[in-house]
Amino acid sequence: MRIRLTVAYAGGRYAGWQVQPDRPTVQGELEAAVARVAGSPVRVTGASRTDAGVHAAGQVCHFDALRRLPPATWKEALNGLLPADLRVLRAREASPDFHARYGARRKAYRYHLDTAPVASPFLAPYAWHRPGLRELEALREAAAALVGPVDQRAFASRPEGDRWIRPVGACEVEVGRLVTITLAGRSFLRHAIRGMVGSLVQVGQGTRSVQEFAAMLEQPAPAFTLKAPPHGLCLVRVEY
Amino acid sequence: MRIRLTVAYAGGRYAGWQVQPDRPTVQGELEAAVARVAGSPVRVTGASRTDAGVHAAGQVCHFDALRRLPPATWKEALNGLLPADLRVLRAREASPDFHARYGARRKAYRYHLDTAPVASPFLAPYAWHRPGLRELEALREAAAALVGPVDQRAFASRPEGDRWIRPVGACEVEVGRLVTITLAGRSFLRHAIRGMVGSLVQVGQGTRSVQEFAAMLEQPAPAFTLKAPPHGLCLVRVEY
Repeated sequence: MRIRLTVAYAGGRYAGWQVQPDRPTVQGELEAAVARVAGSPVRVTGASRTDAGVHAAGQVCHFDALRRLPPATWKEALNGLLPADLRVLRAREASPDFHARYGARRKAYRYHLDTAPVASPFLAPYAWHRPGLRELEALREAAAALVGPVDQRAFASRPEGDRWIRPVGACEVEVGRLVTITLAGRSFLRHAIRGMVGSLVQVGQGTRSVQEFAAMLEQPAPAFTLKAPPHGLCLVRVEY
Repeated sequence: MRIRLTVAYAGGRYAGWQVQPDRPTVQGELEAAVARVAGSPVRVTGASRTDAGVHAAGQVCHFDALRRLPPATWKEALNGLLPADLRVLRAREASPDFHARYGARRKAYRYHLDTAPVASPFLAPYAWHRPGLRELEALREAAAALVGPVDQRAFASRPEGDRWIRPVGACEVEVGRLVTITLAGRSFLRHAIRGMVGSLVQVGQGTRSVQEFAAMLEQPAPAFTLKAPPHGLCLVRVEY
């Protein structure tokens, strides 16, 4: 019986999604909790292998349960075992061919920027403090230019493979108490989202023009870019 | 030259406001930072000696600076030295007879309750998870009954002295993504706010009636009451 979970986590304490020896990881915590309920080791597969320090409001993962329990019982049992910074929001039975990673059609990420003169100590774990982000019109323009097929090598860290051009499905800027940049796409190269956000922030700070940003999109080679820190980033939704 | 600071902090990492040997405290961090700028030890006096784990969005404190620096310079220098969970929001010169603690006319505290079925991992450091809080009308009624002179022994921990009856100036319940209870008054007995919130929460959960709550207010002796945990509490404002 395949179980599909939607989970949320505050990533600050974790070395990312993927299991690593001797370091707390989200996958590691989930696998330990599922194994305690199941009575034997279980692999938990996630949609997105979020970086160290990145948060999730709607990560999706699946596992195969030999022990037949109603999904609601899985949810309750796991939340009883997991730490407070990692919660199962929903659990349901999935068809045997559902795959959290390969089946994902689109993932949405949100990046949070605190633009107040003094950073809020309450938002500090979840937002990058950029008090100089004043060129919001330019930031919006650059964000709009990012939508469509993008050679992500301009933004990624050491891009591997050859599928470098991947479509960015949405890039929306919202301005409130925080400035948020929401990006969506089927897949992103390693660190490409943080590279995109870092470059957009440079536009917002006036240290890179919209034209320079647009030129990066034409560049086939990795460009020197600012990588936004992980703690402002949150995986908000996975669509199948 | 007396400097008045408004500070905000996420209290999770601190053993409260007041300096303690070998434990991180808000006062300790502030005094260390002020001393580094001033070049000699300085006492920092706060309006409210918040408990371990309690947060502040608007704590007020003062110190006497032998080194004459503009308040804006103090603010910048201190924020450069302080950890990210403790920020100086405002700094200004105060008259020599301003006293952060003795001059405070009214303090407002806000208690945050997360009533979602599954607690948000992002709000978990700042809100008490009470998914069963459904009797919101009774909670409002009890909160209204709390306004006026209250013998706070019913809610406090080991009340000392003899000024047990102290007025509660406001007690407001707001219902949104969180349920918040805002309490204001000139002073409160030790742990009395957490006792008041705990008792109000019992009313909201239907485990204590409004009549029982009202009876507690008539009781001169400490009642057996539920003390709300510190991490949901935030000192929001001090008025002079």
